[in-house]
Amino acid sequence: MDKMCTDALPLTMSSPEKQETICIFGTGDFGRSLGLKMLQSGYSVVFGSRNPRMSSLMTSGAEVLSYSEAAQRSDIIILAIHREHYDFLRELTEVLNGKILVDVSNNVKINQYPESNAEYLARLMPGAHVVKAFNTISAWALQSGALDASRQVFVCGNDSRAKQRVMDVVRNLGLTPLDQGSLLAAKEIENYPLQLFPMWRFPFYLSAALCIFFFFYCVIREVIYPYVYEKEDHTFRLAISILNRMCPITALTLLALVYLPGVIAAILQLYHGTKYRRFPSWLDHWMLCRKQLGLIALGFAFLHVLYTLVIPMRYYVRWRSRNITVIQVMTKKENPFSTSSAWLSDSYISLGILGFFLFVLLGITSLPSVSNMVTWREFRFVQSKLGYLTLILCTAHTLVYGGKRFLSPSVLRWCLPSAYILALIIPCTVLVVKFILILPCIDKTLMRIRQGWERNTDFSKSAVNGKSDI
Amino acid sequence: MDKMCTDALPLTMSSPEKQETICIFGTGDFGRSLGLKMLQSGYSVVFGSRNPRMSSLMTSGAEVLSYSEAAQRSDIIILAIHREHYDFLRELTEVLNGKILVDVSNNVKINQYPESNAEYLARLMPGAHVVKAFNTISAWALQSGALDASRQVFVCGNDSRAKQRVMDVVRNLGLTPLDQGSLLAAKEIENYPLQLFPMWRFPFYLSAALCIFFFFYCVIREVIYPYVYEKEDHTFRLAISILNRMCPITALTLLALVYLPGVIAAILQLYHGTKYRRFPSWLDHWMLCRKQLGLIALGFAFLHVLYTLVIPMRYYVRWRSRNITVIQVMTKKENPFSTSSAWLSDSYISLGILGFFLFVLLGITSLPSVSNMVTWREFRFVQSKLGYLTLILCTAHTLVYGGKRFLSPSVLRWCLPSAYILALIIPCTVLVVKFILILPCIDKTLMRIRQGWERNTDFSKSAVNGKSDI
Amino acid sequence: MDKMCTDALPLTMSSPEKQETICIFGTGDFGRSLGLKMLQSGYSVVFGSRNPRMSSLMTSGAEVLSYSEAAQRSDIIILAIHREHYDFLRELTEVLNGKILVDVSNNVKINQYPESNAEYLARLMPGAHVVKAFNTISAWALQSGALDASRQVFVCGNDSRAKQRVMDVVRNLGLTPLDQGSLLAAKEIENYPLQLFPMWRFPFYLSAALCIFFFFYCVIREVIYPYVYEKEDHTFRLAISILNRMCPITALTLLALVYLPGVIAAILQLYHGTKYRRFPSWLDHWMLCRKQLGLIALGFAFLHVLYTLVIPMRYYVRWRSRNITVIQVMTKKENPFSTSSAWLSDSYISLGILGFFLFVLLGITSLPSVSNMVTWREFRFVQSKLGYLTLILCTAHTLVYGGKRFLSPSVLRWCLPSAYILALIIPCTVLVVKFILILPCIDKTLMRIRQGWERNTDFSKSAVNGKSDI
Repeated sequence: MDKMCTDALPLTMSSPEKQETICIFGTGDFGRSLGLKMLQSGYSVVFGSRNPRMSSLMTSGAEVLSYSEAAQRSDIIILAIHREHYDFLRELTEVLNGKILVDVSNNVKINQYPESNAEYLARLMPGAHVVKAFNTISAWALQSGALDASRQVFVCGNDSRAKQRVMDVVRNLGLTPLDQGSLLAAKEIENYPLQLFPMWRFPFYLSAALCIFFFFYCVIREVIYPYVYEKEDHTFRLAISILNRMCPITALTLLALVYLPGVIAAILQLYHGTKYRRFPSWLDHWMLCRKQLGLIALGFAFLHVLYTLVIPMRYYVRWRSRNITVIQVMTKKENPFSTSSAWLSDSYISLGILGFFLFVLLGITSLPSVSNMVTWREFRFVQSKLGYLTLILCTAHTLVYGGKRFLSPSVLRWCLPSAYILALIIPCTVLVVKFILILPCIDKTLMRIRQGWERNTDFSKSAVNGKSDI
Repeated sequence: MDKMCTDALPLTMSSPEKQETICIFGTGDFGRSLGLKMLQSGYSVVFGSRNPRMSSLMTSGAEVLSYSEAAQRSDIIILAIHREHYDFLRELTEVLNGKILVDVSNNVKINQYPESNAEYLARLMPGAHVVKAFNTISAWALQSGALDASRQVFVCGNDSRAKQRVMDVVRNLGLTPLDQGSLLAAKEIENYPLQLFPMWRFPFYLSAALCIFFFFYCVIREVIYPYVYEKEDHTFRLAISILNRMCPITALTLLALVYLPGVIAAILQLYHGTKYRRFPSWLDHWMLCRKQLGLIALGFAFLHVLYTLVIPMRYYVRWRSRNITVIQVMTKKENPFSTSSAWLSDSYISLGILGFFLFVLLGITSLPSVSNMVTWREFRFVQSKLGYLTLILCTAHTLVYGGKRFLSPSVLRWCLPSAYILALIIPCTVLVVKFILILPCIDKTLMRIRQGWERNTDFSKSAVNGKSDI
Repeated sequence: MDKMCTDALPLTMSSPEKQETICIFGTGDFGRSLGLKMLQSGYSVVFGSRNPRMSSLMTSGAEVLSYSEAAQRSDIIILAIHREHYDFLRELTEVLNGKILVDVSNNVKINQYPESNAEYLARLMPGAHVVKAFNTISAWALQSGALDASRQVFVCGNDSRAKQRVMDVVRNLGLTPLDQGSLLAAKEIENYPLQLFPMWRFPFYLSAALCIFFFFYCVIREVIYPYVYEKEDHTFRLAISILNRMCPITALTLLALVYLPGVIAAILQLYHGTKYRRFPSWLDHWMLCRKQLGLIALGFAFLHVLYTLVIPMRYYVRWRSRNITVIQVMTKKENPFSTSSAWLSDSYISLGILGFFLFVLLGITSLPSVSNMVTWREFRFVQSKLGYLTLILCTAHTLVYGGKRFLSPSVLRWCLPSAYILALIIPCTVLVVKFILILPCIDKTLMRIRQGWERNTDFSKSAVNGKSDI
């Protein structure tokens, strides 16, 4: 399913029209990898080094000269040097005047310096055209040709001609340049390769906390309680039973947390009577994390499905089922068929299957390539209509699972209700509030607010705007 | 898995080289959201309004002036006004002469007016350069920054310089401009955000009709029939058993319907002796819907798999299995192992698993990002060879499921055969006809027709063409 | 989920600004399809043919002239002619001078001629600007509009103005032009549509070989052995039991083979003391195939999951379980609950589920659209950290499955150990070597080598480079 490697071949072979020379300052790992890649792409490469005579290091085909000699050979100078050593460039101010300096540096920490490396370089060399590029590409990827992850090279710079030249080089190397505007963007570009799933951090910690809480809650109720009161060893439940309680509860709670911020936002809009007041920042952040929360919830739902489907294969379940049969035979009791039990068991399972099916559908539509292909109307239809239907089905699945035992006092252990009752709190709240919000009278007000109407401004004015403007 | 939000940041910060001023007519919701986004992206924004003194409405940073004053401040004027109010622009003809007018309007219905809004505007203001853009972006998306769905902005216009200017603005806002050509495309662009899965409509209705038919067919046979004749309450079957009969039957029928139009097309081509006669339009439409039909079939197959895997967990199944054991013990009858039953049961299951596996593979290759990476030869290999293999496996799965009971008269209830027999009609027809079509003699003729040969034109001419041309 | 067809509509309608004329030499299938598409996109089309009077062939709207007449009508001439007939162009040298010749030809075999068709054409017509394009698009796709697979048109040529003109035409037809550089790339472009999953070939053959080996290994142990010694007919095991042994073993072996080349590479780097010595080519090729190996392993794991989940539904399993119960009742033996068995059974299943879950996660992140959105750091985190965790979990799953029977002599049949023991050899080797490699002392050396340090060069020099260069 992947042609990347073979795709790269024609690109690698496509040589720039006349053999252009590119100068690289610094013979470290990244400098050498980049130089090799450029040689392969048909460029002629010259390295600038403090000790130009140690050319044994170099891959054949590239010259190693002193900094100033190397700089004279090319318009484009790539600085494969750490920011801390930019100072030495002061000596080369004259040679570098009017040249394109490409800053490829990265930092060790996010926001390590108040000023981005590229802006610092531009301040240091005001006569040169500084362009930020290549910092998101790894030396290893360049060398091995295995560009499985992103081939995107973010490029920014104040001089558009210089930027264009660098973007052409990027394209000739078989990479995808992305123009990010002026050097102001350099800070973001330098932070980019340092980040590790920033949008996933909050959802991850939240779901981990929920997991741990529900895990220990179930351990107390189902392992420690029977051990204390009945001296029974139920530790084997840790491996599947407890996990299969923790997963669906976490999944349902996370799914409800996907829809809770929307409901809170609607209440805030109704309360303030306008949509132009900014939400508190925690709500903004929460709303931006909804997709990630939903996908983690889908992961737990998937685990729940797997853990549920293996139930009939478990030793404990087979042992118990056999014993029940044996006892039935021994005691010669009859086992009448209960239609209501069949209904409860089947509808509980069926609701779960349908809920999971819609959940998987939601997950597929959130794949970047799929969501790129739908219009806004379609995206909102899927994410809002189908999303709420999923929440309703999954909540109903849990409610029917409870069935007759629901809130009966006999299930309390140390005053702790069954875990699935906790799982129902947030989803039911969200669904009830949402139900109130879509009552015609409230929905109408909310709709008008979302179309720009404001309660506190005088009505005639809004009417004027409302009529003619979009 | 999503960097969109963080990606947006550098783009947001990238300011246009000199602070450009953009004028927005209309202070409605969309106008304000767009203005705010432009301010954030470094533009200077001026609003044109009927009542310019009511500037309290505006987000800080933007001026509100009268229409003509505002228009004089910028080359680009964005019309955030409903089409019904375009008339007032006549008064501004002089001011707007030579300016770029950006039409962002949408209609309420598809094809609401015979002429697109942008073309109407161009007729109204012949001296201005009308560009259609931004209509596919929602105000809410602009405001929240949560551009999860498409960031694509379709742009069209007759003046290529004006179009280029607008596309630069789009790019600076962090969106992706897509050049759609001249203003003739405006109608399509205006209809685009109104559509709701147009390619899915026919497959959806078709599968819904099939679902409902098979559902009631099974209800009659398996719930009403035993109730009438044996007074047994089988309603609990509705929740899982009936659904698990409906899903595979619908899936198999839909899968066969994916391959049926190809077979019909081949027969038509053979019949007419040419590939240059157009197919009837229903066949064309059907062929374009095949991917959607296949994906819906995959959805039903997925549900069938889930409904099947939960069988051993159902109350009814456990109850029956226990009773059978008890009866076996009571009656002391032996239960000899039947190798043929084991073979039938295992091969039926195994065929289903392999069929489903290939079906999932087909589904994955139809993901846009995956199908974008394969060549035509590979795509056809997967969709045609693997597709037919899937159909064969799934049909065989159903045939073996029938096993010995197949067409035995005892399964007729009210003259209705088992539902799975209905499911086999279309797949078997498709497979038989396809088998005939790939017989060497017919396949050869068909191949020649598909390479441009025609039966009715005189042969010598075709030979000339066939030899030298592609 | 797919808007392609509707997307195409505005593009189809967008006409080039003035009605440009394009000439097509050759009235074969591809020429006619391309001509029709161009007519639909607003171009005026003229065909060049040997027998121009046979215009009945043509779709209405296009003229058919002699070659030289047709060529005079347009700057751009598309050659829909087989390479073998390029000779006749010599007669037209004068007419074609300075024109853009678009070579759309494909060959029948990869590397059929030593020189690409486009380069041959350029040599033949030195006065014309030869551009390679359109060869990756199928005639059928152009005609039906069902461009489900790639819309990418690779374009290359030595004259950048000519290339630009052709790319504009491509864009106007609703296709995506991709500039591949100079005519040197033509060979690759011509080979591209002929290839059938080249990166998948080695992984496919390898996994097929593993499959067949493990299949027959299990057949010998579990079907032939009991038949020879106990005269029992176990052939029904072929349908599910044997497949469900073959799948997990192949999956685990392939998964280990994904991580083995990385381990070998690390050992080679440690041995040579440098990262700049090239790996043997088999290792390079193996490393580029890792993604494909992993995805095939995921496929087998998926089959294993399905084959495992259907176990309780199988006739043989139900028959045996019933018999065990009956015997328990008959003999009145008690069946005490064994906590250790419950632990073994549950933890074995649980490890498998978690391993499969992570495996699916790895598979999703290798989707092109997802892996395009992650940074290098994130990609390596997922593929390396999560990948090894998956391998550990799956290996542990297999180890616990063995449980008490592991290596007990009673399971040997004809000196053959259980198949799962074979499955453990490579994974355990990889994990043990990897564990040694991440011991602090070795890891530190390896890290320095990967950052460019070399053991055999004198240290002071490396220190200089190491300090200042990236």
